[in-house]
Amino acid sequence: MKKHWKKVTSVVFAVLLVASVISALFISSNTQAIQAGNEIAVTETVAKKATEPPKYIFLFIGDGMSYPQIQTASYYLGAKASDGGVVSIPLSFMDFPVSGAAETYDSTSFAPDSASTATSIATGYKTYSGVINMDTTFTKKFEAISEKLKNQLGYKIGIITSVNLNHATPAAFYAHQPSRSNYYEIGLELIESDFDYFAGGALISPTGKKGDQKDLYKIARDKGYKVVTEQKDAEKLSSNDGKVIVIAETLADADSISYEIDARENEWRLADYVKKGIEMLYNDKGFFMMVEGGKIDWACHANDAATTIHDTIALGNAVEAAVAFYNEHPGDTLILVTGDHETGGLSIGFAGTNYDTFLTNLINQKISYAKFDSDYVANYKKNSTEFPDVLKDIESNFGLVPKYNAKPNTNPNLILTDYEYKKLYEAYRKTMDGYRQLNEEEYILYGTYEPLTVTITHILNNKSGISFTSYAHTGLPVPVFALGNGSELFEGYYDNTDIYFKLAELTSVK
Amino acid sequence: MKKHWKKVTSVVFAVLLVASVISALFISSNTQAIQAGNEIAVTETVAKKATEPPKYIFLFIGDGMSYPQIQTASYYLGAKASDGGVVSIPLSFMDFPVSGAAETYDSTSFAPDSASTATSIATGYKTYSGVINMDTTFTKKFEAISEKLKNQLGYKIGIITSVNLNHATPAAFYAHQPSRSNYYEIGLELIESDFDYFAGGALISPTGKKGDQKDLYKIARDKGYKVVTEQKDAEKLSSNDGKVIVIAETLADADSISYEIDARENEWRLADYVKKGIEMLYNDKGFFMMVEGGKIDWACHANDAATTIHDTIALGNAVEAAVAFYNEHPGDTLILVTGDHETGGLSIGFAGTNYDTFLTNLINQKISYAKFDSDYVANYKKNSTEFPDVLKDIESNFGLVPKYNAKPNTNPNLILTDYEYKKLYEAYRKTMDGYRQLNEEEYILYGTYEPLTVTITHILNNKSGISFTSYAHTGLPVPVFALGNGSELFEGYYDNTDIYFKLAELTSVK
Repeated sequence: MKKHWKKVTSVVFAVLLVASVISALFISSNTQAIQAGNEIAVTETVAKKATEPPKYIFLFIGDGMSYPQIQTASYYLGAKASDGGVVSIPLSFMDFPVSGAAETYDSTSFAPDSASTATSIATGYKTYSGVINMDTTFTKKFEAISEKLKNQLGYKIGIITSVNLNHATPAAFYAHQPSRSNYYEIGLELIESDFDYFAGGALISPTGKKGDQKDLYKIARDKGYKVVTEQKDAEKLSSNDGKVIVIAETLADADSISYEIDARENEWRLADYVKKGIEMLYNDKGFFMMVEGGKIDWACHANDAATTIHDTIALGNAVEAAVAFYNEHPGDTLILVTGDHETGGLSIGFAGTNYDTFLTNLINQKISYAKFDSDYVANYKKNSTEFPDVLKDIESNFGLVPKYNAKPNTNPNLILTDYEYKKLYEAYRKTMDGYRQLNEEEYILYGTYEPLTVTITHILNNKSGISFTSYAHTGLPVPVFALGNGSELFEGYYDNTDIYFKLAELTSVK
Repeated sequence: MKKHWKKVTSVVFAVLLVASVISALFISSNTQAIQAGNEIAVTETVAKKATEPPKYIFLFIGDGMSYPQIQTASYYLGAKASDGGVVSIPLSFMDFPVSGAAETYDSTSFAPDSASTATSIATGYKTYSGVINMDTTFTKKFEAISEKLKNQLGYKIGIITSVNLNHATPAAFYAHQPSRSNYYEIGLELIESDFDYFAGGALISPTGKKGDQKDLYKIARDKGYKVVTEQKDAEKLSSNDGKVIVIAETLADADSISYEIDARENEWRLADYVKKGIEMLYNDKGFFMMVEGGKIDWACHANDAATTIHDTIALGNAVEAAVAFYNEHPGDTLILVTGDHETGGLSIGFAGTNYDTFLTNLINQKISYAKFDSDYVANYKKNSTEFPDVLKDIESNFGLVPKYNAKPNTNPNLILTDYEYKKLYEAYRKTMDGYRQLNEEEYILYGTYEPLTVTITHILNNKSGISFTSYAHTGLPVPVFALGNGSELFEGYYDNTDIYFKLAELTSVK
């Protein structure tokens, strides 16, 4: 498939350039002079389109995803496929012809949050951390690109996320609130948006903070939305169903979609929601689809490298679904893939392993930190489980082996050193004693996470040659990958607000 | 100046595209149809050039410089200029029209070294870490782009570095050795290269490992090189002087050029060596100039954020000198700015400061870790200096203040917490006792550095909201900024070997 769009792209590209440059220079295009042939036939069609906006726009946002998350996933895939070799297997979008970079700082900090950064991408304005599409005086509302495309061009709009549908990133494409925590109000705006396709995790606070408001799902149904909560019903949806809200059948931590690493075999992935979205939104006027890989961020907050890698790969797979659509509509489609900010200060490198990495260690992790918390740690606390029994679960779920359990064929990279064993035991004690962060040193060690679980992932990361510097966001710029009609505009190193301006320029919305 | 090249660029750009695309599609260019006017006059000249290779090629390599180093420097400048505000002031090259990304892994590791990565950039081949322009069997030599441009096109060649002239990165543009440590042999190849302008730090092992070989500087003079070691003589150099080797008058750690943070007011910076290089190399046939900001890497190895920032800014200033030349020769010039790999796992973020950064703290650092080692720590050891006296020097050189010395107007962000004070005292004791790394935990804390000094920079970094994960290189991709003739080729996300292939394609060397 990659080869396919690459060939198409080069032709489209060349012709977009000819068309725009020729028109800029007032040369009357002499089409008779163009050589005959199949490629040129495509060319002429596309040349006409080049002055028209892309009708089908995909905007993928990996929350917390920047260069480290993407490159780690690619190197992990390469190491896995070559049994520990030094090989890079690119995610779908890494081969896009354009890869620019965007600065992410907001009005509060160089380490911004998802509300302000999504506001910048959706509206072209900087604002404070925590604010959704409003200015820093909390008085002016900003209209999002998705709203403009719907109102001015009649595009259908889809919003897909692996986290809650009224979480900060999706909210910035339909809501306007002084605080990202106004979940109920954001939910009301979701319904008022009249957008066509919402799919993702469940709404937070569907009956308000105190549970005394009218249920958001009921309001949505009253306003004409079909609300679907079972996968078999989601599978049956077609564009005849009108406006829909699809909530994942299996809800994981905080009512989000399962982490890729935890998902059941036939459970819908982000890619499935995108495929269904294309089916629901496809029409002659056009559509705009925002797709968030929201749990890349959550896993990075928790410093869980393996889980982040799997969710980044899942985002890559979701992009493949859009690329398949692009291949059918190359002149009409634009695909953007970016992040809102980096999370965790992830690096492919760790002081303790120097120049070495052992990424295949991460294959041994079978569960996310969150599911280990809910399925194991909760029971440890209830049952006062002894450390040796906990170590057995750690071995089966993360591959880490205490020295006394090492066998002749045990991978030496997975045997706990005395230093690591000591750290793990201390963390186990903190967890069993009911951890509440007491001092600076403990915060650096555990953040606000279960000491046991975050220490397991820290040790596995470090033994793999991976490390994190923070439990929060960082100031790294994010890549902006682009394919299709208008992609050349996304070239260079610019501010995240420029993503909006480039989209607005392309589509001529005001 | 920035505005100037931006304007020029857009015209050049449009025309390069027209020229290449039109020729690709076999449309006979109807120049009569082009509107008259000044811009078009420029256009026609440049259109002709577009099918010709760039005659003047600058390749800037920030050693250890990737997105984190660049963005941190830009945010530091913004924070400093706005007295702690959230502002980004771009380095010269961040505004270039093209900013691609390159993967850096080599045949040994995802965290490669400077020898193999410079080999990839210079020759298009991957090889093992530590190898200069040879294959992984150590039998085949690779010819570098600089050698090809000299031999096939008659370009003059300049090699500038802030580290030693026979260090790995510069070596990859003239030498071919199974080990980067073959300094004497690399020095011999430097002389044999017959390149026109070498400028930087002194040669390592100029009389061989045992000191029993003929002095490299003498050999160079015998072979027709003018060797200059005083700044006043370097200032006088002109293209009439023939082949020259300029060694910095003031040599710092390991005989490199001073860190920017330590440099005297009138001491030549990287930018001065570039300006002189342009003067020496300018000719009708063309030139290729490789300029390495080599100590960005050294400072990141030592986890010294402030020193890295200042050296990154110095590289930006050196690029400005090339941009000034570009503005005089826009159609003939290509400027590339990239890194060879990331060093240190630098992030704008730290667990202890969460979403906050305090980059203006770093203004208080007045000295590099290396100069603090040589000018202060060496004396502490000799004189068994007491901790309170050491703390006074720490305050004046890094701004960090022990609680008992804090005054009402002391910046609270610079007062040592009990945890930091304890860590600093422990590190002081390790340094005074003559540190030799004993165990895993100590390596993570201090690497191979002076415990006192690396702990000072760790604490100042962390209080500024900055942190490192490693004392080695990491697997982050590097940006590739491009301006001028052929810049559009450097778009996208690709392998570092593609930098060579793109240059070879542009210049048609084989």
